[in-house]
Amino acid sequence: MEAIRWEDSALYLLDQTRLPAAEDWLRYTDYRQVAKAIQTMVVRGAPAIGITAAYAMVLAAQENACKGDFPAAMSRAKAVLAASRPTAVNLFWALDRMENLWLSAGPDLPRLEEEARAIHREDVLMNEAMGRAGAELVPQGARILTHCNAGALATGGYGTALGVIRAAHAQGKVSMVYADETRPLLQGARLTAYELVRDRIPVTLICDDMAGYLMAQGKVDLVVVGCDRMAANGDFANKIGTYSLAVLAKYHGIPFYTALPSSTIDRSIPNGGHIPVEQRGGEEVTGFAGVPTGPVDVQTWNPAFDVTPHELLTAVITERGVLRPPFDRELAGLVHN
Amino acid sequence: MEAIRWEDSALYLLDQTRLPAAEDWLRYTDYRQVAKAIQTMVVRGAPAIGITAAYAMVLAAQENACKGDFPAAMSRAKAVLAASRPTAVNLFWALDRMENLWLSAGPDLPRLEEEARAIHREDVLMNEAMGRAGAELVPQGARILTHCNAGALATGGYGTALGVIRAAHAQGKVSMVYADETRPLLQGARLTAYELVRDRIPVTLICDDMAGYLMAQGKVDLVVVGCDRMAANGDFANKIGTYSLAVLAKYHGIPFYTALPSSTIDRSIPNGGHIPVEQRGGEEVTGFAGVPTGPVDVQTWNPAFDVTPHELLTAVITERGVLRPPFDRELAGLVHN
Repeated sequence: MEAIRWEDSALYLLDQTRLPAAEDWLRYTDYRQVAKAIQTMVVRGAPAIGITAAYAMVLAAQENACKGDFPAAMSRAKAVLAASRPTAVNLFWALDRMENLWLSAGPDLPRLEEEARAIHREDVLMNEAMGRAGAELVPQGARILTHCNAGALATGGYGTALGVIRAAHAQGKVSMVYADETRPLLQGARLTAYELVRDRIPVTLICDDMAGYLMAQGKVDLVVVGCDRMAANGDFANKIGTYSLAVLAKYHGIPFYTALPSSTIDRSIPNGGHIPVEQRGGEEVTGFAGVPTGPVDVQTWNPAFDVTPHELLTAVITERGVLRPPFDRELAGLVHN
Repeated sequence: MEAIRWEDSALYLLDQTRLPAAEDWLRYTDYRQVAKAIQTMVVRGAPAIGITAAYAMVLAAQENACKGDFPAAMSRAKAVLAASRPTAVNLFWALDRMENLWLSAGPDLPRLEEEARAIHREDVLMNEAMGRAGAELVPQGARILTHCNAGALATGGYGTALGVIRAAHAQGKVSMVYADETRPLLQGARLTAYELVRDRIPVTLICDDMAGYLMAQGKVDLVVVGCDRMAANGDFANKIGTYSLAVLAKYHGIPFYTALPSSTIDRSIPNGGHIPVEQRGGEEVTGFAGVPTGPVDVQTWNPAFDVTPHELLTAVITERGVLRPPFDRELAGLVHN
């Protein structure tokens, strides 16, 4: 299962706003439209956004290769893409990596395309590596709770949190995955349940407000989620609702993990207080799929992410292995290796 | 605002499954249809279900007054109504109160009607009394989080948790009410936000998975919810999601209250482990406001309620005043006064 393709000098994205009702592939040749696709969540998930932005810079290079002042045009394109969403750091990481190349190599289209493909390919390899590492943490017969979608659709393929689940399932260890539906945009119901049903991994869909009672009933052995940005001390941003789950897991003595590639680590900020949290429109909260629920004029609060302090994390699963507290030292070591 | 009316020997219910899109009043003259209305949540909320069942017994009396073996016919009607929903104890309390009368007075329609009206009238008075008592707990400028709908629509009028909020608002103390939307049936979005907007009480709608982060941001001064059944030790069942909020409130040091009339107390059970928790159909979870979300064939878990242990409660607000721990002693005293 994949959600991003590069073919014949064009970018193709599986429209994740329409899943699972429809599997529509959209074709992009203009980086501005790709920025819009990121903003409207045609593509979402921190690693997938990074890969998409890298391909979008290839589109920008194609548009500007034969015009004057190539670096300035590329900088403008980079700025447009960087403004699409603020929280996931992989976006900025991928744009910087592409920038290093176009500043040194100029409008070398084959090399830029290969760099974007490399970012994509490496992401899948990192997911598989973190799947192997994370599966070690999963006990036999495990019942695993996850939130939002950190699966193949959120990445170059395979998934971060769902990569761990896929690897553990391949080892016969998973008896049930509980998927939070993840309001407001229902990525858990629409994407995670869809991925797992397709892969024949046992999955039970629940509403977000059921997770605490599920834990109290003794039905959860561990929680694993993705990550949109991790600060140097291990505090991390992820889909809204993650923080509540972390507190609930702590209260019930249930291990709580996040799985992420090292491109999700932001060494430039000391802690989670520095992560910008995107606020989205109220219409996501007052309705779904065009159906209004609350009064149309009601005030809303709609942060797309929350920040979980590192104290609530049992371990961090990366492509280079499992990190245990103290995370600041472990993360510094990981980055400098 | 009211949701239950008795006029010209018929019961009228405001169809709460269609609010706020439509304000439809449905007319009932057959208790069997009333049982169905309770089951399908045309009417919901523990006190409102009790009042509705009392009126339904008047309909049963009207049907059977001139037939043979009145008590047996009434017992059959009572059994049909008792089977409509299992968790809220007010249903059984109201049926027992009506039964006491028909067993002693026989098919005395005016007296049975007056008894049902008394149950209805007393509920509103109890709500107002618990509003006065609960408002004492609300600090000036309070930001209050609530879950589901424990308002006028869930009761004979005024509300339990929303009664406390209404009374505190009348005293100028409420700066913001945060309403959890309350999946799967969205009573918070559809009913609580609707009631509060109508009464011009400031309200912000959030998704259930945002409550923890809202608390972490210091935006919640207290939580107040309703109650469907309270055991002798203070453990209580309420809408699914209540337990998660109680744990989150504890973690953040935020006072957590439930408001209930004494008819919601079930002295016959020592603790919450004895409260039957209704499991509802999966289609409530796999769809949102009539729109399918997850894969249609995905497994679900859909408890309509959860049970919160008394240790997580700061105080219990009743029509006879505010109870503090130890709740077992306080509740016993309350019932025997």
